[in-house]
Parts: sequence; structure tokens; C-alpha cells
Amino acid sequence: MQKPSLPKGTRDFGPIQMARRNFILDTIKETFQIFGYQQLETPAMENLSTLTGKYGDEGDQLLFKILNSGDFLKNVSEEDFKNGAATTLPKVSEKGLRYDLTVPFARYVVMNRHELTFPFKRFQIQPVWRADRPQKGRYREFYQCDADVVGTDSLLCEAEIILMIHKVFSKLGIQDYSIKVNNRKILTGIAEAIGEAGKEGPLCVAIDKLDKIGKEKVEEELRQRGFGEEAITKLQPLFDANPEDFDAGLEFLKGFLAESETGKQGIAELEETLNILASLGGTRDHVAFDFLLARGLSYYTGAIFEVKAHGVKIGSVSGGGRYDDLTGVFGMPGVSGVGFSFGVDRLYDVMEELGLFPEDNLSAPVLLLAHFDQKGFDYAASLLSQVRAKGIRAELYPDLTKLKKQLDYASKKGIPFVGICGDKEIESKTVALKDLTTGEQSSVTLEEMLEKLY
Amino acid sequence: MQKPSLPKGTRDFGPIQMARRNFILDTIKETFQIFGYQQLETPAMENLSTLTGKYGDEGDQLLFKILNSGDFLKNVSEEDFKNGAATTLPKVSEKGLRYDLTVPFARYVVMNRHELTFPFKRFQIQPVWRADRPQKGRYREFYQCDADVVGTDSLLCEAEIILMIHKVFSKLGIQDYSIKVNNRKILTGIAEAIGEAGKEGPLCVAIDKLDKIGKEKVEEELRQRGFGEEAITKLQPLFDANPEDFDAGLEFLKGFLAESETGKQGIAELEETLNILASLGGTRDHVAFDFLLARGLSYYTGAIFEVKAHGVKIGSVSGGGRYDDLTGVFGMPGVSGVGFSFGVDRLYDVMEELGLFPEDNLSAPVLLLAHFDQKGFDYAASLLSQVRAKGIRAELYPDLTKLKKQLDYASKKGIPFVGICGDKEIESKTVALKDLTTGEQSSVTLEEMLEKLY
Repeated sequence: MQKPSLPKGTRDFGPIQMARRNFILDTIKETFQIFGYQQLETPAMENLSTLTGKYGDEGDQLLFKILNSGDFLKNVSEEDFKNGAATTLPKVSEKGLRYDLTVPFARYVVMNRHELTFPFKRFQIQPVWRADRPQKGRYREFYQCDADVVGTDSLLCEAEIILMIHKVFSKLGIQDYSIKVNNRKILTGIAEAIGEAGKEGPLCVAIDKLDKIGKEKVEEELRQRGFGEEAITKLQPLFDANPEDFDAGLEFLKGFLAESETGKQGIAELEETLNILASLGGTRDHVAFDFLLARGLSYYTGAIFEVKAHGVKIGSVSGGGRYDDLTGVFGMPGVSGVGFSFGVDRLYDVMEELGLFPEDNLSAPVLLLAHFDQKGFDYAASLLSQVRAKGIRAELYPDLTKLKKQLDYASKKGIPFVGICGDKEIESKTVALKDLTTGEQSSVTLEEMLEKLY
Repeated sequence: MQKPSLPKGTRDFGPIQMARRNFILDTIKETFQIFGYQQLETPAMENLSTLTGKYGDEGDQLLFKILNSGDFLKNVSEEDFKNGAATTLPKVSEKGLRYDLTVPFARYVVMNRHELTFPFKRFQIQPVWRADRPQKGRYREFYQCDADVVGTDSLLCEAEIILMIHKVFSKLGIQDYSIKVNNRKILTGIAEAIGEAGKEGPLCVAIDKLDKIGKEKVEEELRQRGFGEEAITKLQPLFDANPEDFDAGLEFLKGFLAESETGKQGIAELEETLNILASLGGTRDHVAFDFLLARGLSYYTGAIFEVKAHGVKIGSVSGGGRYDDLTGVFGMPGVSGVGFSFGVDRLYDVMEELGLFPEDNLSAPVLLLAHFDQKGFDYAASLLSQVRAKGIRAELYPDLTKLKKQLDYASKKGIPFVGICGDKEIESKTVALKDLTTGEQSSVTLEEMLEKLY
């Protein structure tokens, strides 16, 4: 008899994990909706022609491909076979699993361009799949949670992203965190200011590793990437500065980028975003300026965001930015927008590490009705619908068995209250309500019980 | 430039469809939870060893298989290749996509048998994939929505399934429907009563087609399956009877099955289920006895359910039954239970055909704040957070543009109210609130607007 197992890098989510994940996801979803975003879902499978070439060579390798149905070898010649996997692949597979939510979103926008109303604000919460080597905290199936606005370059969107992050973190109870903000144009300006105009790409890639490998190694990498000693020297004030104070950072940068039109535009955009944030009544709390923030993603053209929770050794839990061209690769140029996402698995880990989840199982029933015999069972049954009609999650132990077994069941399932129905209770039309947390037990009427549990 | 497309048999769900689907799914989910069911999610990918052999030969064909990562041909010899797809398949693919929610649930129960509390009540709402030929109403990716209790044979579970169906349909606004109930033991009894004991399998398969092909063709099929003329003659009263009246049906069957112990047990179970339903305060409305109901599924051993909406030409929207052995195939015998599921796509179609969805987009923002210039934009921004703080979905048009364009945006997105912020409104601290449904416009304060929209 086979012993079943899970594919490596995948997980089941049992009742407690689901309740906690749903708490996070519902919070995010509700916030997106309050801000006017509407939900989209796309299929798990996409044509490989949609997916390949969008994530670089490494991404193409990490796509999960679906074998064609039926005789999948029918189009494979002996020569194809001898040429190996690369030649054979297009003959045996036409579809792959979604690798992120951005490419399917771009495809959706292009396919529905004539029906959509722009600016189009969508959010999407679905799993994605990557054939990465599984390791701690890295899975082959995980949820992404994206929100994007396309079809407007208003900085209102950037300001609202900050508001949404504030709202989600406040509802989740995460108090100590920072929203780092930057602007790609500032990075462009820095490249200009150090005399390496146009090289902000490699500059970003190197700077992005600052936290991980330190200043010396970043300089080493810059040298390897062809940056001159003069440029590296000119960068020094930036490495040294990076002040905590937002306004001091801006002032410093205004000097540093005085000669760069693009850089000054980046600063202006950042200031305007903060102004809009203020007119929205939003706070600057948690918002930090990090003019070296690059996020390694070359397609950002304006704002760049990254959110980290403090007090835990967990990477960024949210991030995003503005981009110029979402759909060009599908033949629809000029669709710009701004988007961000929450890392659900990491938020889960942060909340667990900080002890922010409530002790009790969030989705467990609140009440179990227990009994000693058929008469008690029937009496309990007669109460049950009235409890549920109040919206209270409740159940009746289904089998006639010892009370201890029923109490054990409640305790293991995380049900906090047990309503015991014996002869005395039937006679007095009450329930012996036992609080499993405190061990206290009291005789209550149905109405009193409803009031207590509601 | 490539023109993107969707794999056949798959769909995108845009904002309106998502809002409607979520309305259905949230209703079902909430009902499951009120009844003490807890959520489980399993990975999209399962090992092929978990999936194959569980759905018959046809099912194995319809599994979507995932190509192994990297050089997927590395274990394929030239001989394998020449032997064809069947020999090559196990060398190039180890994983497949979930085909239903039952097998992953069984795997989960076996893998977590020592941690789970029985009776274990779980629900699961996730997509499944089948490489079926796509056609109207049949997709290659669709949601299933299952609830099961394992580890008890109490008929309370059956009675509660009827209650849950009542609750879901009532909340969805579907008023005209029937819950057909039967019991596998009654079918076994019928096979005994017509002198063909042990042949309820083929009897069920043939009878299951009664609605589709009619009595004559069913009889024809029974002959082909080796049923004697005497047996077919003995079946006549059943075909002729099948009365609308539940009790009359039971009385008739008590006579017909008088000699079959199993048959009588089936009747007793059905009666007991109705008794429990009554003690739960449930109604027998919509519940119909169909002693020919078989659902073509041979693994049911007790109760069988099937739900159809009237007034639409759409197949069953819910169904289920009791089974004896969920996990035997994974080496854990004796796990019996009862389960049922809702067909979300079909429920969607029923509600659409009956016009049960509200006219307006269920998830669209309720309010758009519009403006004529920067001053109006800033004023609108100052109101926005207060609207959202009330939990009202609202947005501010992000760009400075003509009012008409902003009104068009609201109208196309299904936003019912537009709060126009001009100089007059700024001065009087009001908003010109326009109801896009009626066209009426009135000057209101923020408080008045909140009251109206809340």
C-alpha cells in the first residue's frame, strides 16, 4: 500500500493556518476594495507563448510546464528527441503554470482593452508556481497579492499605496515597520551626478546588494561593471549620508542632484507624493526615504517602495513601484501604471514571530452542544438552530458517547464553550455552559447563552 | 508582435464576475463555518502516484501532467521513446494537477491522521483541472466546493446537509428547487427485491440515465446488462410510482422492500434523518424522495443527495452522499464519512438565468469624488479618508480632467454616486452629490453624505 506524500516545496494549509491566512488576506482584500480596487482572477494555466521570455532565461527555466494531453510524443521526431530537451519541449508542451500575477494581468488588459475603463484599478490574490529549489521559507507554490492602477500617472496612486500599507499593518497589529520610498529618477540622477549617465541599471543592481554584502563589495562590483574611481569616490557622500531624517535626506539630495534635471524631477515627484499624502490626511509615520533603494527591478521608472517589519529577521513584506510599459510586449504600448504587492507568507511569518495571532483558532466553532443520552441529544438539537441563526458557529456532537470524549473533542478543535445538556437542563430549560479556558461552568438559559457567545 | 490568448477551456474572471462569484462562495463558506466546518487548502500539484488509478482509466487520461524540471529527457532511453507516450510518461512527469478535492482530502487525512481530531469536519474551495474536451458550460479549470465529515456515522450529518442546502439557497435567493434524497441501501434492496441481488451497480448505472434516455432505453440497457425479463417486470411499479408525496413514497417502498433487510435499513436511515431534521427545527420543504436516484457514483454506501433548481435547464447544482472508505487506497481503512459539494459555475448560471444578481456591481466603489481643478482635487482629497474610515468604498478621480470624463468613468465602473467638488462646495463645505441612477443632484454636507452612503 502506497504511503502518500506531498511534492517537495508544496504545503497543505490546515484549519488553524487557513484561519490565520484568511485573516491576513481578508484584511488586504478589504483595504484594496475600500480604495476602489476590484478583483481579477486569471487561470492557473497560461499559454507558454504568453509566459516565456518575460522573466529572463532563469525564469523560463523555473516555469512549470504542462505536458500536452493524449499522445504527447506525436509531434516529436527521432531527430527532435536526439537533439534533446530544448528542441523537444515546444513539441510536448504548450502551456505553463502562472509564474507571477503581472504577466497575466498585462495579458488580460490587452485582451480586454476595448471593454476596460481606464484608469483601471485591479487587485489579484492567487497562487503562483516556480520550480525553484525548495528551501526554508521558499516554496514552489505560494500566494501573490497584487494591486495595480494602469492608465494614469497621477501621484495620488503613490500616496494611496502608502495609505493602504498603513491601513493593512494597523489592522494586522504590526506596529514597528518602515515603508522605504525612493524614485527611479533619483537613481538616474545619481548616475548622472557621478558622471556615469545612463548606467543606473548596473548601478542599481550593485547598490541593491548593499544590505547583503556591504559597501566594500558593492564598490568592488561597481569597478567590475566599469565604473571609474572618480564615480565611486563621488558616490561616497551617498553611502555616508543616508540619514534617518526624511527632510534632511531630501535637502542633501537637492544639493547632490543640483545638476541633474531627471534627478530633480524625481525629488519633485517624491515631494508631491508627500503633499498628496498630507492632503489625504495621511501620516508620514513609518515612511522613510532611502535614496539607494533600487529593488533590483529595472522596469520601475518612477516611485519605488519597500516595506520591512522591524524586530524580525524576515525580508521585505511588501513592495512595488511605477512602471512605464506594462503591455508593450503584447503589442499595446504606453500602458503605464503603478503597483505593489504583499508577501502573504512573509506577513504570516512576521505575525507568528511577533505573537500577533490570537491564541484561539479564529475559525473554530464557538460552541459545542454535548449530551449524555438520546434525550439530551434531542434537546440539544432543538437549541442548535437558534444558536446558529444568531450567526454563532456551533455544532452538536454527532454520536452518543461519554461526556469526556465530547469535551476532548471541543478542546482539541479549539472550541471555547461546551453547552452540556443533561436531564436537569432539559427540565429547567437551561444549558450547563462550560468555559474550557477557565474551567468555569454555570447554568444559563438559551437567551443568556446567546448573549454570552454573541 | 504576438497577440495573447487564453488556453482553451480556461477563463478570466473580471470585476463583475468576481463580485458575483464571491457572493456565492462567501455565502457557502459562511454556512459551512456556522455548521462547524473548517477550511483546508491543498497544493495544486500532487504526486502522480497520489492521483493515478483513483478516477478510472478515463480520469487518468484527463489528468494534467507537469513536465519534470530541467532536462526532462535525461531518464528517457531511445527504447522508451520508441515505445511511445505510455512508456515515456513516467520518466518525464512525476506530478499532476489536482483533479478533484476528494483525493487530496483523503491524502491529507492519512498524512495527518495522528494530529486530527475526529469527527473531522472540513470544507475546501479550490480550482481543479481536467483535460476534458471544452464545450459550453464545461471548462478545464473550475472551482469545486466540498464539505465532508469523516469519522462518524451519525445521521445528524445527513440532516445538517439538508439544513445547509436550505440556508445557502435561501441566502442566494433561489426559491424553487428540490433536494432529492435516497439511500444506497434502498437501491441494494431494490436489486434484491427484483431477484437480482448484488447487481445494484449496473442497476444504478442504467437507472441513472432515466431522465436522459427514458424508461424504454433504460430497460433495453438492463437487458444488455443481463437483467432478466422477470426482474424488469418487477421494476415496473417503481417506474410508475415515484410519487411526489414523500410519505406515500416511503409507504410504497416499505411494501416493495418488505423482504429485503438492507432495503428496510435504508428506509429506516432515511426516516431517522428526517426525524433529526425535525428535531433541529428544519423544514421538509424542497426535500423530495427519489428512490431511483443513484448519481452514477458507486462509492456511496448510505444517503445520496442531489439538488436541482427549477425553471432552468441546468444540471444538478449540488450533490453528495455517504461513503464507507475514503482513505483505504492510501492504507488507512475504515474512514467513513459523508460529504457534499456545490457546483459554483452552475449556481452562477442559475442565478444569472433567474436574474437573481443585483443590478449593480457588488464590489464597485460606492462613491467617486470628482473635481474641476487642483483646488477641488485638494478639497476632495481632504474628505476621502473620512468616507473610507466609515468602511465606504470610495475613490478620488486621479487626474485633473473634464467633469464629463469623470462621470463617464463612474458610470462605466458601476459607481452609483459622484460627489462633485467645485468652488461653491469648497466655500460652503459641502459636496454636490449626484445619484447616477436617478440623475438627481443635491448639495450635502460630509455628514449627510456619509449617512446617505452608509
